[in-house]
Amino acid sequence: MSNPTAAMLVIGDEILSGRTRDANMYYLAGALTDQGVDLKEVRVVSDDADAIVSAIKALSAVHDHVFTSGGIGPTHDDITADCIAKAFGANIGIREDARALLAAHYEKTGKELNEARLRMARIPDGATLIDNPVSIAPGFSIENVHVMAGVPSVFKAMVASVLPHITGGAPVLSQSLRVERGEGDIAGPLGLLAEEFSDLSIGSYPFQDNGIYGANIVVRGTDGPRIDSAMIKLARIFS
Amino acid sequence: MSNPTAAMLVIGDEILSGRTRDANMYYLAGALTDQGVDLKEVRVVSDDADAIVSAIKALSAVHDHVFTSGGIGPTHDDITADCIAKAFGANIGIREDARALLAAHYEKTGKELNEARLRMARIPDGATLIDNPVSIAPGFSIENVHVMAGVPSVFKAMVASVLPHITGGAPVLSQSLRVERGEGDIAGPLGLLAEEFSDLSIGSYPFQDNGIYGANIVVRGTDGPRIDSAMIKLARIFS
Repeated sequence: MSNPTAAMLVIGDEILSGRTRDANMYYLAGALTDQGVDLKEVRVVSDDADAIVSAIKALSAVHDHVFTSGGIGPTHDDITADCIAKAFGANIGIREDARALLAAHYEKTGKELNEARLRMARIPDGATLIDNPVSIAPGFSIENVHVMAGVPSVFKAMVASVLPHITGGAPVLSQSLRVERGEGDIAGPLGLLAEEFSDLSIGSYPFQDNGIYGANIVVRGTDGPRIDSAMIKLARIFS
Repeated sequence: MSNPTAAMLVIGDEILSGRTRDANMYYLAGALTDQGVDLKEVRVVSDDADAIVSAIKALSAVHDHVFTSGGIGPTHDDITADCIAKAFGANIGIREDARALLAAHYEKTGKELNEARLRMARIPDGATLIDNPVSIAPGFSIENVHVMAGVPSVFKAMVASVLPHITGGAPVLSQSLRVERGEGDIAGPLGLLAEEFSDLSIGSYPFQDNGIYGANIVVRGTDGPRIDSAMIKLARIFS
């Protein structure tokens, strides 16, 4: 498969401290798979400038796209935009179109466009704004990095704004079979099947449900009829 | 704070494809925070040997501990143990004490200790076994890396086996205040407070609940009375 590849960078102390359970990784992973983009790696780092800058440099150098989540709000711990600018050696300042979006929004809602809120109009030079229909303050794309908010409803809306601009490959299709036998009994014949269908990705994901041990066998690939063939053999082996 | 630092490596295509929502990161993050170990970074990589080996090398070089999740079962896609051995230049083979654990378990449950199940007794030279009271097949620790299963119930049991052997620092304490105002109104005074209490970590985590915009302000640190002082000022500012 030569689908475009992607990485995600989740930024936030609240995830690493165990305070918040991340939801954005799971959402983005599904959305990219549907689009035919292979999510290859996710990193989670704290609100630390050096950690963010070096992760952005490393990930943007080896993947077609990098998606970030978190750290673009108005408070002192929101440092993502500045770190992205630094990673690409770009200047950053208040951008007029972003400022105008915020001004119109806060005028309508009767809130003051104060200094803190103006920080959300700080965008690195050369970036394209990402539309935020939920709370207006935009994300942005620069080079191959797409910078989005951490609040899940806003993150989802921004992903919906970005994805139409990204060329995907063949959508990755998958089928699965639930086998109620120990993985140790499944492993031998499954390994042979995986060799025979080495053009597909065949994974075994063990579970325990109320004392029943088993595994979900998942067959993934871009060739639907080929997956069907594997599933027919799989069902024959484990029925 | 000079608490020991940790990183986590989650291994598994099923997380990156969006099929499974990871639960182990959230669990480990909370457990390490309670123990006074600072989780600094998490990476998620696919079942790919090069990706696993290079992540292990990078993370183990800069953190006191690395915890891995996934890829130590009996099927063809379980390659973690071999990758860890490769990362440390260690030999790997079936170890007698691990084999004996499996043999006793499968004899009791009437299952065959076949070639696939024996793979779970393959342990790099020099490693210490991690007890698995749930499904017996052990994890292992080698150098500063702790290798555990991906099934959440087994992962939790292995974390419980490992943590008593890890020296933590001062537990990180936290208190939070829910403020029902837009983050843009909170940001100014909060930034000043964060400067005054620069020895603490003060984060703002915005939320939207049924149309109410606000933020949870979280104050974290190892000095309880100092956190109390910050919370008193915080409550005064935002009441």
